[in-house]
Amino acid sequence: MKPFMDRDFILSTETAKKLFHEYAEPMPIVDYHCHLDPMEIADDRKFENITQVWLGGDHYKWRQMRSNGVLEEEITGSAPDRIKFQRWAETLELAIGNPLYHWSHLELQRYFGYDGCLNRDTAQEVWELCNGKLQEDSMSVRNIMRRSGVKLVCTTDDPADGLEAHDRIARDSSFEIQVLPAWRPDRAMKISQPGYPDYIRKLSEVSGVAIDSFRKLKEALRVRMDYFQERGCRVSDHGINYVVYEPATEAELEEIFAGRLAGRQLSGEEERKFQCAFLLFAGQEYSRRGWVMQLHYGCKRDNNTRMYRLLGPDTGFDCVNHEPSARELTAFLDCLDSAGELPKTILYSLNPNDDAVIGSIIGCFQDGSVPGKMQQGAPWWFNDHQAGMRAQMTSLANLGLLGNFIGMLTDSRSFLSYTRHEYFRRILCDLIGGWVENGEYPADWRTLEKIIRGISYNNAVRYFGFNVPVIEGSRP
Amino acid sequence: MKPFMDRDFILSTETAKKLFHEYAEPMPIVDYHCHLDPMEIADDRKFENITQVWLGGDHYKWRQMRSNGVLEEEITGSAPDRIKFQRWAETLELAIGNPLYHWSHLELQRYFGYDGCLNRDTAQEVWELCNGKLQEDSMSVRNIMRRSGVKLVCTTDDPADGLEAHDRIARDSSFEIQVLPAWRPDRAMKISQPGYPDYIRKLSEVSGVAIDSFRKLKEALRVRMDYFQERGCRVSDHGINYVVYEPATEAELEEIFAGRLAGRQLSGEEERKFQCAFLLFAGQEYSRRGWVMQLHYGCKRDNNTRMYRLLGPDTGFDCVNHEPSARELTAFLDCLDSAGELPKTILYSLNPNDDAVIGSIIGCFQDGSVPGKMQQGAPWWFNDHQAGMRAQMTSLANLGLLGNFIGMLTDSRSFLSYTRHEYFRRILCDLIGGWVENGEYPADWRTLEKIIRGISYNNAVRYFGFNVPVIEGSRP
Amino acid sequence: MKPFMDRDFILSTETAKKLFHEYAEPMPIVDYHCHLDPMEIADDRKFENITQVWLGGDHYKWRQMRSNGVLEEEITGSAPDRIKFQRWAETLELAIGNPLYHWSHLELQRYFGYDGCLNRDTAQEVWELCNGKLQEDSMSVRNIMRRSGVKLVCTTDDPADGLEAHDRIARDSSFEIQVLPAWRPDRAMKISQPGYPDYIRKLSEVSGVAIDSFRKLKEALRVRMDYFQERGCRVSDHGINYVVYEPATEAELEEIFAGRLAGRQLSGEEERKFQCAFLLFAGQEYSRRGWVMQLHYGCKRDNNTRMYRLLGPDTGFDCVNHEPSARELTAFLDCLDSAGELPKTILYSLNPNDDAVIGSIIGCFQDGSVPGKMQQGAPWWFNDHQAGMRAQMTSLANLGLLGNFIGMLTDSRSFLSYTRHEYFRRILCDLIGGWVENGEYPADWRTLEKIIRGISYNNAVRYFGFNVPVIEGSRP
Repeated sequence: MKPFMDRDFILSTETAKKLFHEYAEPMPIVDYHCHLDPMEIADDRKFENITQVWLGGDHYKWRQMRSNGVLEEEITGSAPDRIKFQRWAETLELAIGNPLYHWSHLELQRYFGYDGCLNRDTAQEVWELCNGKLQEDSMSVRNIMRRSGVKLVCTTDDPADGLEAHDRIARDSSFEIQVLPAWRPDRAMKISQPGYPDYIRKLSEVSGVAIDSFRKLKEALRVRMDYFQERGCRVSDHGINYVVYEPATEAELEEIFAGRLAGRQLSGEEERKFQCAFLLFAGQEYSRRGWVMQLHYGCKRDNNTRMYRLLGPDTGFDCVNHEPSARELTAFLDCLDSAGELPKTILYSLNPNDDAVIGSIIGCFQDGSVPGKMQQGAPWWFNDHQAGMRAQMTSLANLGLLGNFIGMLTDSRSFLSYTRHEYFRRILCDLIGGWVENGEYPADWRTLEKIIRGISYNNAVRYFGFNVPVIEGSRP
Repeated sequence: MKPFMDRDFILSTETAKKLFHEYAEPMPIVDYHCHLDPMEIADDRKFENITQVWLGGDHYKWRQMRSNGVLEEEITGSAPDRIKFQRWAETLELAIGNPLYHWSHLELQRYFGYDGCLNRDTAQEVWELCNGKLQEDSMSVRNIMRRSGVKLVCTTDDPADGLEAHDRIARDSSFEIQVLPAWRPDRAMKISQPGYPDYIRKLSEVSGVAIDSFRKLKEALRVRMDYFQERGCRVSDHGINYVVYEPATEAELEEIFAGRLAGRQLSGEEERKFQCAFLLFAGQEYSRRGWVMQLHYGCKRDNNTRMYRLLGPDTGFDCVNHEPSARELTAFLDCLDSAGELPKTILYSLNPNDDAVIGSIIGCFQDGSVPGKMQQGAPWWFNDHQAGMRAQMTSLANLGLLGNFIGMLTDSRSFLSYTRHEYFRRILCDLIGGWVENGEYPADWRTLEKIIRGISYNNAVRYFGFNVPVIEGSRP
Repeated sequence: MKPFMDRDFILSTETAKKLFHEYAEPMPIVDYHCHLDPMEIADDRKFENITQVWLGGDHYKWRQMRSNGVLEEEITGSAPDRIKFQRWAETLELAIGNPLYHWSHLELQRYFGYDGCLNRDTAQEVWELCNGKLQEDSMSVRNIMRRSGVKLVCTTDDPADGLEAHDRIARDSSFEIQVLPAWRPDRAMKISQPGYPDYIRKLSEVSGVAIDSFRKLKEALRVRMDYFQERGCRVSDHGINYVVYEPATEAELEEIFAGRLAGRQLSGEEERKFQCAFLLFAGQEYSRRGWVMQLHYGCKRDNNTRMYRLLGPDTGFDCVNHEPSARELTAFLDCLDSAGELPKTILYSLNPNDDAVIGSIIGCFQDGSVPGKMQQGAPWWFNDHQAGMRAQMTSLANLGLLGNFIGMLTDSRSFLSYTRHEYFRRILCDLIGGWVENGEYPADWRTLEKIIRGISYNNAVRYFGFNVPVIEGSRP
């Protein structure tokens, strides 16, 4: 029996161990998609206790606690932090096979030096240990990032955001890690959301463009893209239910936009036309700027009305959607490609059954411009576990070139979640190590090193064009 | 090479063996969903020969025989039982990798003491051995249940059923196993089925409520629910093509119901509205009574018209359906939840691709009322095999708390199929044992015992509120 | 560590090795579905260089090269063959885990005697070695087929094809391998394709039936079926987006057909009605003739308009489709079955999620006429890799009788791809060998031999009724 989560956790062969410890483990991290609050980095925040860090905003954990029958009061409510932590510990011991079990213990090992198991009985000692450590300087958010080998992160930012925190960080010569904005214009696209006119008013102010038409909206967004680009932005992101392809004329679009600003209720068709036009415009701009377009789809959000009223969005009440997407997704990409305006694109679906669809679609739009121009994103959210990663990488290997995969991202609100890169790299090395051990790929260490270092770090650096060094050699 | 289906069948690690033999194997069985005929228990029936037991009504086996080109005459027709058994033996040897291969041999081992392999050559000796044993008292259905460690079963019963067999069994002090009714009101819900008005008339008689409106139908069903509840009913079941959410006004529903009774043909929309209203009503009632709602969907039935005319329903001509279900299913559950009337619910889809959809949906409706209020059911029907069980439990572990899973059910018409619980427990222990051996979960035997005993038996006892003892200790 | 792709490649247990080397490996090949050009066989063509063989028409490889950022010029364009080969070698080393990695090296081993690894550094030596060998007589296409153990192939042919090449081959007594036509009437079915009236005119000429109605079209097709049948045709094939069931009257169909010939644009509904009627007619005819009906669906073709204009169809721009198919597919099969006119049928979906749907549908239409009348085809195209084959065979085993599976086909345009049969057989033997080693199936060598030889070769011979010997004994 292997010891619990030791040095060779997940690494089941000698080749896997070699690949991980020699090639993957020493690589730094570029986290090209996360939800960190840049102000906390600017302030170099520290946390009071482990409940704040772990249970302050992590709806993954909240869902598990609800699954264990814990009262909402003791999850997101006003119960004392120690009680919440106890409930989490009691829940975790039943989460056998869940990635949270591994993530939590990787975080305890790497950041708090705790090698035991968190459960109802050890909760008190873990509570004390963690809270003590959290007072140390080494546990400020900047130092956590440094200890994790992070070279660069991309946050997730609204076009109307002034990026003041990013500016503060960039001007602070004592902090060497790049914190770049990423462009997430969901609020500008989701035309039927309540408050859309207010948002447009805000965007007018920030951009200096009086937005009274769709044409003007695009102009304002271009202004803001310039602003983001000056601050190092290289990547966008879109959260959509599903990829729509429903073309419309400029006149129709202007009527839809004007109608919305005048308070008219839009039809589903109008919404779809607007989303399609918005994303086509966005893709064109990204293509010109060399930005990467990320599309996250296949999600059905806010399914529990009662809890939505209580807690709002992003609190653990979303699910996988599984409407067929291939028809409109290919038409959308083809429309951009036909005009020579298809940017580098990463597709993420929350539906794990979409692996082959995505894998075969990206193959239809690869071209001679850059290796792996079209990417299937790392397993997203509900798929971000060992089985999901093995499935996604196996599918990617079967349908395309795994060697060009840009690898992992945290997609996280937490500063402790860089261990997810470690988790991913262990699985990657175990998968590829297994193939080598089975005689399915030669023990050609030079190429294997290139592939492992590439997927761990170098491929993303090159793909996004980040200004950090590529690390080829045996020593990072 | 491991011997064929020996003591450690499926158990590939030492930990798996320990988990199974120490914790899982000694646990009794509560079979919370089956299709046994309670009259056969009341009568303590014996069977004449193994063809009667195995091929009398088992459409799983019939399908395989048809796949082998066996004439219908020798499957469900008038060929002699010995011939049918021969054809089954010839078929079985080609069913390599099929769960029927394992189930059949587990049954031969556990109930008939036969450790060989059934094939065309051994058919005669198996025929003789089994038929001899079937004459023994130990092979009456009650004794089979006793030998299998069964403490409680829930049959599947129509609201109009008088439950006379259940009463006879309950009054018989010589039989200690609980045989509870379960509420399956499909005939009351499927408003467009031929004979619906006749069924309503029957329900009127049995309930003493003259059903001339939807309101009266609900009243009659409440009367019958009381009747079922007095006899220990704790669980309902619904077989539906897919989960519909199409709300309607009371007036519309009354018009639909009255129209149907008056012989009018209903539109698809009317059917869906009726189904939705019926299930919402049912869910509310279950919630009040603490009953569990089981929803079985994703099935397309009776696909072969020629054979349907010959043999009727449930004869082996159904298939997996794969229409997307997330949108309406979440809306349906949300509607009940918003009113505070969502009962404990178990979702079963026949489509194996629905694992992640279901796993993420149940996470949206868990609450503080009870651990694992929302459950993904054990792999149903076409998915009830080793790969299906590993996939379902892996998905459950990834998305929720495997530790709260209520585990296996036979869903069977046969008294010999309790070995499916053994099969399931072996797979469960092998899966979890593998994680422990790989260092992915600690060798914390106390918690492992709790989890294994829970999934094998205790979780179901607590979840349904059955009146049988929970077994915590090391000796049952 | 196992050596790279040695004698026991993929065979991970002793049982797997025995099954492969004793039973599977010595079996000949019937390749019942391929896209070879029969004229190349008639001419006994030789190839100039390895780029011609490998990159002349293989869009699988083209896709990978595009994924690696190779310019189209160096893939399908006018760059020198040596450069194209270099780009392929550079691409291949990143294709870790891809079936092309294994296929390419199996071909290098079996046909060129090269046991090394092809990569950027070895490309020159491989180029020279292969091109030298290609000049030898042993590398004419007929000799490649002989060396591969091929007994019979079915090409893919249009009803209007004169089959002159087939006739030349049949008359050539120096060539012993059967090259049979297969009936692929896509051009006669796809009524909305540009050029349809021209095609109908051609078919009129070839058949001698003046086609001015749907009735006459069917008459002409029957004439051509007779012509194909005289040349040994036993199997048809249909490439369809999805299986349509939309019945129409004869009058409607005649109007649709006449309208199309008169240049009218058809509606989607009219197209679907025509496709449905065409396939029902085809199925009836196959049933009468004992032909096998192959249905390939779940594909979305020609997604990249820009590249379609440049290169035309079948150049690497197709993807998996995932529209739900169960409803119409079952209705279509039921319609034929109800009339007693359902032929032997093989279903192939490009969507890997359709395994359970297909597996359960074929079970609804098996009958006493022949073992395994309804078949799930071997993993098609994007699914033709190790994971796909394991998944398909596991699903087949779980839902039906794996022992009756008719096994592998190349579906290939290349004379070197017979190694895909070897690849398949290795995976088959590893899968079944694993079950035997785990005690999940008895080490009953007689039955195992029957199953392995059956799936490798005998089942297909019997199923299609080919005039080649079944090989039962231990020596082929």
